Amino acid sequence: MTITLYDLAGAEPDRRFSPYCWRTRMALAHKGLDVETIPWRFTEKEILTQSGQGRVPVIIDGGKWVADSWVIAEYLEDRYPDRPSLFGGAGGRALARFFNVWVDTIVQPALIRLVVLDIWKHLDKRDQAYFRKSREERLGSTLEQAQAGREERVAQFRQVLQPLRATLEAQPFLGGEHPLYPDYIAAGAFLWPRAISDFKLLDPADPVAAWRQRILNLFGGLARDAKAYAA
Amino acid sequence: MTITLYDLAGAEPDRRFSPYCWRTRMALAHKGLDVETIPWRFTEKEILTQSGQGRVPVIIDGGKWVADSWVIAEYLEDRYPDRPSLFGGAGGRALARFFNVWVDTIVQPALIRLVVLDIWKHLDKRDQAYFRKSREERLGSTLEQAQAGREERVAQFRQVLQPLRATLEAQPFLGGEHPLYPDYIAAGAFLWPRAISDFKLLDPADPVAAWRQRILNLFGGLARDAKAYAA
Repeated sequence: MTITLYDLAGAEPDRRFSPYCWRTRMALAHKGLDVETIPWRFTEKEILTQSGQGRVPVIIDGGKWVADSWVIAEYLEDRYPDRPSLFGGAGGRALARFFNVWVDTIVQPALIRLVVLDIWKHLDKRDQAYFRKSREERLGSTLEQAQAGREERVAQFRQVLQPLRATLEAQPFLGGEHPLYPDYIAAGAFLWPRAISDFKLLDPADPVAAWRQRILNLFGGLARDAKAYAA
Repeated sequence: MTITLYDLAGAEPDRRFSPYCWRTRMALAHKGLDVETIPWRFTEKEILTQSGQGRVPVIIDGGKWVADSWVIAEYLEDRYPDRPSLFGGAGGRALARFFNVWVDTIVQPALIRLVVLDIWKHLDKRDQAYFRKSREERLGSTLEQAQAGREERVAQFRQVLQPLRATLEAQPFLGGEHPLYPDYIAAGAFLWPRAISDFKLLDPADPVAAWRQRILNLFGGLARDAKAYAA
C-alpha cells in the first residue's frame, strides 16, 4: 500500500527543500516502500491537524498519521522489520539519536545563514510573508543581512563538518559499506540547500562531497533527479 | 586467559588518567575478559616497541599485540563474538566511528585546557619534563596559562556537550537501555580528568552527570573505585 508523505515545497510544487522530509523520503526508499508525496507549504498547517502538530514530514500509512522525522524512522523500522533495516541493529538505532541531535543542533544552524534568503526566493507569495517574519524574528536580522558575507563564512560551515569528514575518509557511508538512516540524516542537510540554492557549500575535493555524490546515486538517482541546482 | 593492558599512570602507579586507556578498560570489562593492567609512563616508549608505536593503550592477548583504542575495540568485538557485543550490530559499529571522532576532536580539545596543569602535578619527575615541553609546544602557552581562567571557560565545555546531553535526556545510555562502546568512548572523557583533578566539570543537575554516575556504577564500580578525586 502506498504511503502518503506531506513534503515541504516551494512555489513550484516539485521543489522540495525540507531537511527533515528528505530524511523520511530516503528512509522510505531504503525500506522499498511506495510513496506518494503531497507538496505542502508552511502556511497550510490546518491540513496537518490530524497529525497533532503543524510541521512536516507527516506520513499517512494505512490511515495512521505519524509526524516528526525521527518518530517516522522508528515507526518504519518497527512496522516493516522484514525490509532492509534503517539502523543496522539496536546499537545503531540508539546512537543514531545522538547523530540526529548533532545534525539538528550543530550542522543545521551553521547552514541556515548560508542560504536563508535563497529559500525565501523560492517560496510562494503566502509563504514568503510568513517565512520572512518568523525567520527574521528567529535570526534577529533581515534575511538579506543573515545571508550576507557567506563566501567568507562557508569555511566555518566546512569546519563544522570535520567529524563527518573524518568518518567518511575511513568508510564510504556512516552506515559502513552501505547507507543507513544516519546517512539520510546527514543527506538531508545537503539535499535541501541544493533544492533552493546554487551556492557551493562543499569543495569538490572534500570527502563529504564524494559521499554526497554516492547519496545522489542511491535508489536510481532519487535525490539527483529531484528539482535542484547542480550539486 | 588474562589480557595485559599497558595503562597510562601518574607518579602513583594506580592513578590512571588516559581517556583512551579508559575506553579499553571498560570495553574489556564489558566483554567480561580478565585483565592485568601495567602502569606505563609517557617516557617508557621503548617498552611498547612490539606494538609498532609508542602510545597506550596497548594490549597483549595470547601473545598478540594490539594498539590504539579504536583498533582494540574492533579487535575485541571480532575476537570474542560470543561475548556481549560492544557495538550492538553493524550499524552501531559503523556509527561509533563518527562518535569516536567527535569525542576526540570536539570534546577532548575543549577539556584539556581545564585540567592540563593538574595532569602535570600528578606525573612522576621524568614524565613532568617531557609532558611540559611537548604540551606547551602543542598548546602554544605554559601549562599554567593554558589552565588559567577555567572557572569562566567551563561553561563553553558544558555547551560542547549539548548533543550528548540531549541524547541522554532521551535514553539512559548512548547504547540505549544498556551501555555500549560509545558510552565508554564518552566515559573516557570524564574518567581521566577525575583521576587527576578535583575541578568540577559538570553541574550535578546535568543529565550528563547522572549518566556519569551510571557509568561509575558499572562492573561492580570499576571506575568508581579507581584512584580519583570525588566525582
